[in-house]
Amino acid sequence: MTEKLKNPEFKKVALLGLGLIGSSLAHAMRRKNLAGTITGHARTSATRKKALELGLVDQCFEDPGDAVRDADLVILCVPIGACRDLLSAIRDDLKKGAILTDVGSVKGAIVRDLEPLMPKGVHFIPAHPIAGTEHSGPESGFAELFDGRWCILTPLSGSDEKALEKLKNFWRACGSSVEIMTPEHHDLVLAITSHVPHLIAYNIVGTASDLERVTESEVVKFSAAGFRDFTRIAASDPVMWRDIFLNNKDAVLEMLGRFSEDISTLQKAIRWGDGDVLLDLFTRTREIRRGIIEAGQETELPDFGRAPATASEKSAEPAKKEK
Amino acid sequence: MTEKLKNPEFKKVALLGLGLIGSSLAHAMRRKNLAGTITGHARTSATRKKALELGLVDQCFEDPGDAVRDADLVILCVPIGACRDLLSAIRDDLKKGAILTDVGSVKGAIVRDLEPLMPKGVHFIPAHPIAGTEHSGPESGFAELFDGRWCILTPLSGSDEKALEKLKNFWRACGSSVEIMTPEHHDLVLAITSHVPHLIAYNIVGTASDLERVTESEVVKFSAAGFRDFTRIAASDPVMWRDIFLNNKDAVLEMLGRFSEDISTLQKAIRWGDGDVLLDLFTRTREIRRGIIEAGQETELPDFGRAPATASEKSAEPAKKEK
Repeated sequence: MTEKLKNPEFKKVALLGLGLIGSSLAHAMRRKNLAGTITGHARTSATRKKALELGLVDQCFEDPGDAVRDADLVILCVPIGACRDLLSAIRDDLKKGAILTDVGSVKGAIVRDLEPLMPKGVHFIPAHPIAGTEHSGPESGFAELFDGRWCILTPLSGSDEKALEKLKNFWRACGSSVEIMTPEHHDLVLAITSHVPHLIAYNIVGTASDLERVTESEVVKFSAAGFRDFTRIAASDPVMWRDIFLNNKDAVLEMLGRFSEDISTLQKAIRWGDGDVLLDLFTRTREIRRGIIEAGQETELPDFGRAPATASEKSAEPAKKEK
Repeated sequence: MTEKLKNPEFKKVALLGLGLIGSSLAHAMRRKNLAGTITGHARTSATRKKALELGLVDQCFEDPGDAVRDADLVILCVPIGACRDLLSAIRDDLKKGAILTDVGSVKGAIVRDLEPLMPKGVHFIPAHPIAGTEHSGPESGFAELFDGRWCILTPLSGSDEKALEKLKNFWRACGSSVEIMTPEHHDLVLAITSHVPHLIAYNIVGTASDLERVTESEVVKFSAAGFRDFTRIAASDPVMWRDIFLNNKDAVLEMLGRFSEDISTLQKAIRWGDGDVLLDLFTRTREIRRGIIEAGQETELPDFGRAPATASEKSAEPAKKEK
């Protein structure tokens, strides 16, 4: 799968939204020549200008309808809460036979919001690539983002088989493996593997910054003790994440309920000095990481392979670097 | 501070415990010639053998008393729960004028347990280097572990000034900056920057592995959506962490209480669809990471600088790598 395609499967692909995922898709398509032409749309002129400068897209439009005209594949790469209005804006411009897909982290709400608006003859196949970084914007994308990752498709009953096959091949050519699920199961799986972890990361960072007996500068200075790991995902795009929580309410609240029950058990074990309960859990969780490394979804290097801070780089006193 | 010392400050340093911290200290001391001789002690013969093979120590003893005899600096590098018995075993062998220190993540309990046992004329100065990885054992250490990090010392009232100065210089020569705190304040700072983050990481990994509607293999496959970040610190040494929670009960329970209150607020915001509460928090937390990067305590590379999985490395189907 490393060579470029001689004849791209899609003559024209439209990327609506040019943030981390949109720009990474542009790079991944260029890498393998998956699209004859790539058109783009972004709300702000700054992003449109940047996307052209970076060569992400061949043409970039303020009006999303202009971007999707004649496109064989249209990919919505905007926060979930913006998808519905975006589809309303482009529905009359979509080509018959085109595939319309998205990259949102919630699938039930996307189906609920978009399906009623879909024009006849356009194939709607929701998708979710399980890949990302904490960075946002058109400069943050790179071709390898989807390599070795999974992309979950949640086709509706009666989805066109050929269109589904084409979209699967597209994601494989972008470097990913493809999994098929129902929207409901997807939302449950992502609630536990992504949404609740993000929520508790955002929460602990918030709790720490509100303390009075421990200052924020102490939290920052001594963050290498564990806290800093959480700040990565708590630095993810705020609007995107607001929309995820508002649109996957039921699954998130269910998983959060389980998380809270479990933390109460640990709380009680600490209060009563029951070391066995703690030791048992801590031994079990070590195994899970091993499984993730073996599945090729995590580095086995210590500390995520972070380069150690060098004494020369940081000089003798890290304190000097603080505000 | 990059050149080696011609005359090491300490003629003989004893490392009691040769896990990640003990072995990293050995490498850091060798790097700068901080010790004339390094002696070691470990409970198991396998670790003692490995430590000699790796050249971590010049001599290694089953009996910790043999390791500390004539040592100018004795460093306890064992889980907190093992410190008291270890001190009982060596107290009659400690040299008058020696400095005894530790590396434990809790300081109040260490002072409470060790101070009554300290022989007269030995200088007890508790310490805690804010550095580590999720790996354990004598092979996991490396000289750069402490570079650019902080080491917190919690001297007791009436501590010998010269001994304190010597220990400060030792940690600086190991690459760290030194901060002085009371044991109580240390335990509060670490509860929020380290202990509660570890607890919630252990907890979410446990919650995820207990689910029935989502399988463990799904949790593993789709872990790159956020979950895998938590598995790193949830893979830390189980005994060490059990001891931390049992010995910093009050501060951990206080911080956990605040964390739980805050999560209830988010839960309510999700239930009632209050996007502003979410957006406000998620915007605030992004700033904190920026501060940590500026303070030199975190990499600014996306995704911790994890190398992207390459399609060739992982082949087309990550699924094949699973058990």
